Amino acid sequence: MPVVVTDIVRPDPAAVATLERHGVATVHEAQGRTGLMTSALRPLFRPVCIAGPAITCEVPPGDNWSLHVAVEQCQAGDVLVVSPTSPCEDGYFGDLLATSLQARGVKGLIINAGVRDIASLTELRFPVWSKAVYARGCIRETPGSINIRIVCAGAVVEPGDVIVADDDGVCVVPLARAIEVAAKADARAASEEMRRVRFQNGELGLDIYDMRQKLREKGLVYRRQQDA
Amino acid sequence: MPVVVTDIVRPDPAAVATLERHGVATVHEAQGRTGLMTSALRPLFRPVCIAGPAITCEVPPGDNWSLHVAVEQCQAGDVLVVSPTSPCEDGYFGDLLATSLQARGVKGLIINAGVRDIASLTELRFPVWSKAVYARGCIRETPGSINIRIVCAGAVVEPGDVIVADDDGVCVVPLARAIEVAAKADARAASEEMRRVRFQNGELGLDIYDMRQKLREKGLVYRRQQDA
Amino acid sequence: MPVVVTDIVRPDPAAVATLERHGVATVHEAQGRTGLMTSALRPLFRPVCIAGPAITCEVPPGDNWSLHVAVEQCQAGDVLVVSPTSPCEDGYFGDLLATSLQARGVKGLIINAGVRDIASLTELRFPVWSKAVYARGCIRETPGSINIRIVCAGAVVEPGDVIVADDDGVCVVPLARAIEVAAKADARAASEEMRRVRFQNGELGLDIYDMRQKLREKGLVYRRQQDA
Amino acid sequence: MPVVVTDIVRPDPAAVATLERHGVATVHEAQGRTGLMTSALRPLFRPVCIAGPAITCEVPPGDNWSLHVAVEQCQAGDVLVVSPTSPCEDGYFGDLLATSLQARGVKGLIINAGVRDIASLTELRFPVWSKAVYARGCIRETPGSINIRIVCAGAVVEPGDVIVADDDGVCVVPLARAIEVAAKADARAASEEMRRVRFQNGELGLDIYDMRQKLREKGLVYRRQQDA
Amino acid sequence: MPVVVTDIVRPDPAAVATLERHGVATVHEAQGRTGLMTSALRPLFRPVCIAGPAITCEVPPGDNWSLHVAVEQCQAGDVLVVSPTSPCEDGYFGDLLATSLQARGVKGLIINAGVRDIASLTELRFPVWSKAVYARGCIRETPGSINIRIVCAGAVVEPGDVIVADDDGVCVVPLARAIEVAAKADARAASEEMRRVRFQNGELGLDIYDMRQKLREKGLVYRRQQDA
Amino acid sequence: MPVVVTDIVRPDPAAVATLERHGVATVHEAQGRTGLMTSALRPLFRPVCIAGPAITCEVPPGDNWSLHVAVEQCQAGDVLVVSPTSPCEDGYFGDLLATSLQARGVKGLIINAGVRDIASLTELRFPVWSKAVYARGCIRETPGSINIRIVCAGAVVEPGDVIVADDDGVCVVPLARAIEVAAKADARAASEEMRRVRFQNGELGLDIYDMRQKLREKGLVYRRQQDA
Repeated sequence: MPVVVTDIVRPDPAAVATLERHGVATVHEAQGRTGLMTSALRPLFRPVCIAGPAITCEVPPGDNWSLHVAVEQCQAGDVLVVSPTSPCEDGYFGDLLATSLQARGVKGLIINAGVRDIASLTELRFPVWSKAVYARGCIRETPGSINIRIVCAGAVVEPGDVIVADDDGVCVVPLARAIEVAAKADARAASEEMRRVRFQNGELGLDIYDMRQKLREKGLVYRRQQDA
Repeated sequence: MPVVVTDIVRPDPAAVATLERHGVATVHEAQGRTGLMTSALRPLFRPVCIAGPAITCEVPPGDNWSLHVAVEQCQAGDVLVVSPTSPCEDGYFGDLLATSLQARGVKGLIINAGVRDIASLTELRFPVWSKAVYARGCIRETPGSINIRIVCAGAVVEPGDVIVADDDGVCVVPLARAIEVAAKADARAASEEMRRVRFQNGELGLDIYDMRQKLREKGLVYRRQQDA
Repeated sequence: MPVVVTDIVRPDPAAVATLERHGVATVHEAQGRTGLMTSALRPLFRPVCIAGPAITCEVPPGDNWSLHVAVEQCQAGDVLVVSPTSPCEDGYFGDLLATSLQARGVKGLIINAGVRDIASLTELRFPVWSKAVYARGCIRETPGSINIRIVCAGAVVEPGDVIVADDDGVCVVPLARAIEVAAKADARAASEEMRRVRFQNGELGLDIYDMRQKLREKGLVYRRQQDA
Repeated sequence: MPVVVTDIVRPDPAAVATLERHGVATVHEAQGRTGLMTSALRPLFRPVCIAGPAITCEVPPGDNWSLHVAVEQCQAGDVLVVSPTSPCEDGYFGDLLATSLQARGVKGLIINAGVRDIASLTELRFPVWSKAVYARGCIRETPGSINIRIVCAGAVVEPGDVIVADDDGVCVVPLARAIEVAAKADARAASEEMRRVRFQNGELGLDIYDMRQKLREKGLVYRRQQDA
Repeated sequence: MPVVVTDIVRPDPAAVATLERHGVATVHEAQGRTGLMTSALRPLFRPVCIAGPAITCEVPPGDNWSLHVAVEQCQAGDVLVVSPTSPCEDGYFGDLLATSLQARGVKGLIINAGVRDIASLTELRFPVWSKAVYARGCIRETPGSINIRIVCAGAVVEPGDVIVADDDGVCVVPLARAIEVAAKADARAASEEMRRVRFQNGELGLDIYDMRQKLREKGLVYRRQQDA
Repeated sequence: MPVVVTDIVRPDPAAVATLERHGVATVHEAQGRTGLMTSALRPLFRPVCIAGPAITCEVPPGDNWSLHVAVEQCQAGDVLVVSPTSPCEDGYFGDLLATSLQARGVKGLIINAGVRDIASLTELRFPVWSKAVYARGCIRETPGSINIRIVCAGAVVEPGDVIVADDDGVCVVPLARAIEVAAKADARAASEEMRRVRFQNGELGLDIYDMRQKLREKGLVYRRQQDA
């Protein structure tokens, strides 16, 4: 039975802003290397970085009717996350839907399927991560569900989870962990910043991370070519 | 027996110009969602949009001899469409062949195989849609055929069919339908334009397309989280 | 037993410079169509073209510890070539390692796996060819080997071999053949240059390469549509 | 932090037996077309059909240490479900682990990665669904977690959910719905059985499902070749 | 507009029988290496070999309504050929439809999509070539067309063309060429039979095909290891 | 320049026999997890296990002329290893070539491309590992080289190296290491045999390999569901 859940809880806006500032790689590390979507999802243009609460949308293959239903559930700052119930690369999304989402202040689209009109989407600077570009349009015969738990490109997404997406891909931060992960991402970025300066000065990771002894213990040996 | 057909019929130039103006997504819808090549064909650079009559070229795997034969059959405004008889991603096409086609006024290349010298092709702004970039060159041992019916990336192409290609991919419009599809594309684009304004003003697709009643009939229900 | 070989021989710098000037497609032809990595390896940004001696690095799946070991073996002008022992698209490499390699004057990275922080890598203009972009980071539990013979994306790479990489992909020139191949690439480029002028002037490959007689002998026939 | 949850709840054994009797296609329909893993998971031998409570196991790429931890949590009748945190086709599982699971009465293995020793696994008749066969073994450096929620081949699996697996693939039935879905599968199978007899007697689906009128309404027309 | 063409012409039964006896590889050679579907289509069980006139069926992604329409158009000896308008691996076909086709004497199914109930299909010995096995069922919302020209797995199929399918894959012989190709296949098989005896007796292809002189002319040299 | 090397050195027959007895997974471990071809190569039928010295054969895409040249270089007990210079899935090999190799006592074929006539190959019980089954035949225009170093499916193969191939895939043992690896495989198999008995008796890997303490040190914790 298709359903639309209308009153989802959204995460703390400050946490979302922090997560957006740090981007996917840092956030993914900060939450213990979880929540990543597969590498099949790629942005239409680069550089790009967004974060926002997920509005989830489960769709039948080749049927984008529910995207129009989903738009109404989106608020400014949200990210729409769309996943078909079976693999599909049809073009679910084009410039009219992008115009509609932009008019509501939606930050971007994550879709484990295809999109089209990408010249317009790029010109509009509307951020999209998709697994294909494909001009084949969809039908409108079967409603899907909005704001239920979905699996999108290998990751579980609950409505209201924070989506972080940039040039590296897409990561999901569970709603309940948004503040904690934002704090950890801050800490991680700060320590990375200090290390960056040392790397710029020519120091080696072997020394910065104090690896030499541990490598020796694991059996790593150095030798000259002629000694083989 | 390899053959070159030398006197193909070309479509109405005004229809071709119209199709080029509308691009792949609109044209594909206008002709009833047919004629699309697979999403494996991607342009070398973006944005790009061309249309023109197809010169078809069927080639053996790893052998690009026939491309030189095909060049002679191309006129200004044509689009060369190349498909190997078995899957291959060798670099059939590079800067010399692009120079040769540009000298004749050819608008672009569609190839269900690989190309190379893409830095030069990009600098020349010669439009190419291919399924791979691969530097491995070809041999010249076995002739293929020019201007026969071919299957390219899942679509049937007859010589003289209109090829429309842009950032979204590649679409084939049968020669006999060019004028009709151009007219339908005009109509479709006009109605889309009106809808775009409504979307920009924040109206919802649910209302623009009058979907609410039909969704209810299909069983879509709205509920609050706590009522689950 | 993991090993680091510390004293590899490097190729003639003039030969490397020549190979870099000609790029992958020409070099690959000049050495008899050998040494190409698969088309799965793509550059992060374009246009780009580098050449340099290979520092090789074999890594376990999901473990990038050895990249830090490899950095110390790199000199200015080198190219780091990394291949996992089983297929993996984890993000082995990001902005800190890029900063470290840039600080040493390393020219680029070739990796048959994933990378991350690609917005930073692009901004740093640090050239990278990878098979995936994926934010999932690596562990540091198991050392790999540096400067042993490896297979990377289908090509054999010995330490000190010349890596040539550009928009078209990646090619390996064996150390012992660097000077010979550079000379052949010079010759090939010169003859291509002369042909390019003829193509620009509208001459056909059929005539430039004197193909008409040979095509006839292979059975190619020309006919008009209505004679079919 | 890796964790092992030791006291999971298991589903009603009668419901499990019913689900096993009906197999994946029927169960998947019975629960509203949800819960299917991707088609990448294939059985090592056919025919095969099992069902049982899931013991879940999340593993690092290339590291099968946790499988030994998972074995201890398995009881007779369970199904072990293993998913790596990033894509990997290494051989996590071979004949010794199969022997160990068989000794405990475990019904089979679902793994979104590779397995090896498949000649032995086949001879032992130990049911395995995997996405690859690959002889490369794993290391034992990093523990994963047992009996946490995982995503395996596109489906969410909670410990204790019923796994149904046969020649068609793998389906997950949530623990809380096992009895309800088993009942629906019974009903569905009964009505299919009646229809099967009608199909065997040469009746058409057009009539059995009373489709002719609805097809006409959707615009389907019949015509003779010469009337085109 | 979806259409069903009801009066297709079928090929000469004797030619069909001959093509079935020779199988895909021989028939494909006999008609000049054309008409092969891609290697993605694989049989559910082996060995298997069929031939028969094509009933074509074009379907929307995830919608198998038209298969029921197609069944009515099938006669004894026919082969049903199904292709979705965009890539899809849903299970369009299962044991009820197979029962229905078998009741009519249909010889098999070719489908560029998924099938399910494969344990039953195998037990029924109903021959199927598909690109996936996937339990996800289809909806019945949108009619497709029957007996129009389609592209299936890279090959053009007109209704009434002869489909030849065996362990090696699927080949299409145009209706108008069936008798000619059958005769050529007979001739080819006869000459292969004579050569097989020579190969069994230990003669080399180098001598049977008289290749040695031609290889020398192409530059092939023999040398001993130590002379390199 | 294509070349045939005629006097390759072959490995110790007793070592080959030992390697064949142990199979791919054990041999691969015994030589330190190296030498595996990718999982794309699959056997035509199962179970199957062979080992023998490699005769290597590098071929152009779509051209199998050199296979006839290679046959003459094969002796009883050899394994023919064929790799195209660019990716290709054409059917390089069928029943006539299999008959020719069987007449010489060749043990099997490894090919990183396609094969055909697989019903006959299966009936002949001629072992073949390929990456595709595809009926499209090859031309004979360009000679390749025999018994040079090649890369096949990601592994380096020198002529005379031992190929071990079974249901799990294909592994290459360097000629110089054959005796050493055979001895290590013997040792490994013996210790596995002892462990197998313990597993059969219901002992856990956790205890057999003494893992509990080490897992605790790595941070693994056990907890009950309700304590989360």
